[in-house]
Amino acid sequence: MRDAYHEELDTLTDRLVEMTRLVRSAMSRATTSLLDSDLHLAESVISQDEEVNRLYAEVETSIYEVMATQQPVAVDLRTVISALRMAADLERMGDLAEHIAKIARLRHPDSAIPPSLRDTIVEMGQIAERLITKTGTCIATRDVELSKELEADDDAMDRLHRRLFRVLLSPDWKYGVEAAIDITLAGRYYERYADHAVRVAHDVVYLVTGSRQEG
Amino acid sequence: MRDAYHEELDTLTDRLVEMTRLVRSAMSRATTSLLDSDLHLAESVISQDEEVNRLYAEVETSIYEVMATQQPVAVDLRTVISALRMAADLERMGDLAEHIAKIARLRHPDSAIPPSLRDTIVEMGQIAERLITKTGTCIATRDVELSKELEADDDAMDRLHRRLFRVLLSPDWKYGVEAAIDITLAGRYYERYADHAVRVAHDVVYLVTGSRQEG
Repeated sequence: MRDAYHEELDTLTDRLVEMTRLVRSAMSRATTSLLDSDLHLAESVISQDEEVNRLYAEVETSIYEVMATQQPVAVDLRTVISALRMAADLERMGDLAEHIAKIARLRHPDSAIPPSLRDTIVEMGQIAERLITKTGTCIATRDVELSKELEADDDAMDRLHRRLFRVLLSPDWKYGVEAAIDITLAGRYYERYADHAVRVAHDVVYLVTGSRQEG
Repeated sequence: MRDAYHEELDTLTDRLVEMTRLVRSAMSRATTSLLDSDLHLAESVISQDEEVNRLYAEVETSIYEVMATQQPVAVDLRTVISALRMAADLERMGDLAEHIAKIARLRHPDSAIPPSLRDTIVEMGQIAERLITKTGTCIATRDVELSKELEADDDAMDRLHRRLFRVLLSPDWKYGVEAAIDITLAGRYYERYADHAVRVAHDVVYLVTGSRQEG
């Protein structure tokens, strides 16, 4: 049977997994709002980021409590320190989804994404969702092998990110500077979202193995 | 007289202040390399980011050691938790300076900054340096009043950031999409640098008062 203290640590894990669900949903809706120029959906992402922030504050508070009252050592200490870092990364991922939704809102009723880049953005959105889903599984199961898959997905995201720039800089680009700015920023947000997902997975590896990964 | 444990915490503070010096120097050189299209300077920023990363790793390791061996409580616990967050923010600020230097390197021997935006970038660079200098003082002196000044500087950075977009989107813009992309990204890096500086100052406030600020 688990004691109250270890139940508290389990609850911490559950909350982190819940954060991955929220920021996955946020990113999924943000991508759709961007592609379909859906103002209602964009607004929902923007207003619901508050929920991610609230959960983050809860996680932080409970970590401080555990640290102050239980003075964890060894693997338990790694668990709470990792949780602190993971929660910060997940909170940031919520912000990035919100930033993408704000681009959709800014351009509504027009679309920020020209037809020639729709497929790339669709793919970036899919990879983002795949990444955060695996991040959630990684936190829940502590399966360190998954972190390698996340790195491969992150590489795929980087390739798509570079493809965006190739299209923007090609002589055929005819959508002007405003669209180029929107896409530059959106691309950056997807790429950062992927980076943070990988960082969370690396924190799981640290938690399990006690050794730090790069990035 | 301070005991060995509290000397260790003082050393932690010194190292964070040293990190602010490194990332201030990095940002100062990155801005100059961008404005003067100085490849040598840009390379120096890029190669020396390693130093920031090494210091970050050292700070992290010593925090884990303090936590595991001393099991700090109350204000000491807040000190180490804050230090962990501050070090992560400072490390990121080093990355952002490096990103700016990479834009300079990418466009060398051309300049990424058209004449009409030089003044704005000069100002953004100055505010970035002012922010990180105050952040260093804030960490060293624990002067929470400084954090308000940082917020004002951050607002000034946001205004300059918006000015960049106004120039990019004006009908007079004649430097094309590539320059617009460079400036969009550089602007984002300066703005994020400022955000991280404010976060560090907020961590000092948390350390001193025990209550969390937004952002």
